[in-house]
Amino acid sequence: MTEPIRRSPCPINFALELFGDKWTLLIIRDLIFMRKKGYGEFMESPEGISTNILADRLRQLVDNGLIEKYPDHNDKKKFVYLLTEKGEALVPVLVEIIRWGVQYDTQAKNAIPIEVSARLKSDAMGFIEETRKSVRKERKQYLKWLAS
Amino acid sequence: MTEPIRRSPCPINFALELFGDKWTLLIIRDLIFMRKKGYGEFMESPEGISTNILADRLRQLVDNGLIEKYPDHNDKKKFVYLLTEKGEALVPVLVEIIRWGVQYDTQAKNAIPIEVSARLKSDAMGFIEETRKSVRKERKQYLKWLAS
Repeated sequence: MTEPIRRSPCPINFALELFGDKWTLLIIRDLIFMRKKGYGEFMESPEGISTNILADRLRQLVDNGLIEKYPDHNDKKKFVYLLTEKGEALVPVLVEIIRWGVQYDTQAKNAIPIEVSARLKSDAMGFIEETRKSVRKERKQYLKWLAS
Repeated sequence: MTEPIRRSPCPINFALELFGDKWTLLIIRDLIFMRKKGYGEFMESPEGISTNILADRLRQLVDNGLIEKYPDHNDKKKFVYLLTEKGEALVPVLVEIIRWGVQYDTQAKNAIPIEVSARLKSDAMGFIEETRKSVRKERKQYLKWLAS
């Protein structure tokens, strides 16, 4: 496989070519913070993603190694999407975006639980670590369950 | 002025509606890390932004309060763009994007100076603070110069 042609080698440009899209970042948000895994769950998010955009962005995320597609153990005709380590490593980026949003917008501040915004102020690093750990743990458990 | 209708009150969605665009984030990168200010400087970036996209994204950034437009003190027919406090507060987001890019891509890793990648590993918080301070200082100096 040849490497895709990039606009530049800059790390920010690299990242943006992989997930620099509004819908993609909302899917990553759902995977990390809402623990969503299935197509139907992503469709329910309040921003109202369309089926064709969702299908396209999920495929891109799989192609770029940020998520992996597995059969749904509840219904083998369906699929679930789990974050890879590379996808899970985006937690700090998302947390910094939340911190910024909460600081500069009242609606955004009111949209998250008060204990989370307090935690983000007092111990963002701890929150990041916990979130990453629980994403990893859930993935492990799911794969174990699937193999059993 | 009525508030624009949002897709949801989520802080991530709020942030993405303001700067969740590849080109916008590259302009913010140029403002923060390359100390670029002028139209011509943004045009020179290796990703090759087009004039109409650049003009549109700069206008959006001004409208959203992330940057402010001032006359260029070297040439009063031209303009410069400076980050506001709200824009400067995006430094942690950009730094986490760089850290991610550097971790998952060799080209991206090689694109930044070795002392910067070492610093990002050992003292990202210090790097963020310094960067924010110097953005703020440069802005102050420019405004002072402009008023003189």
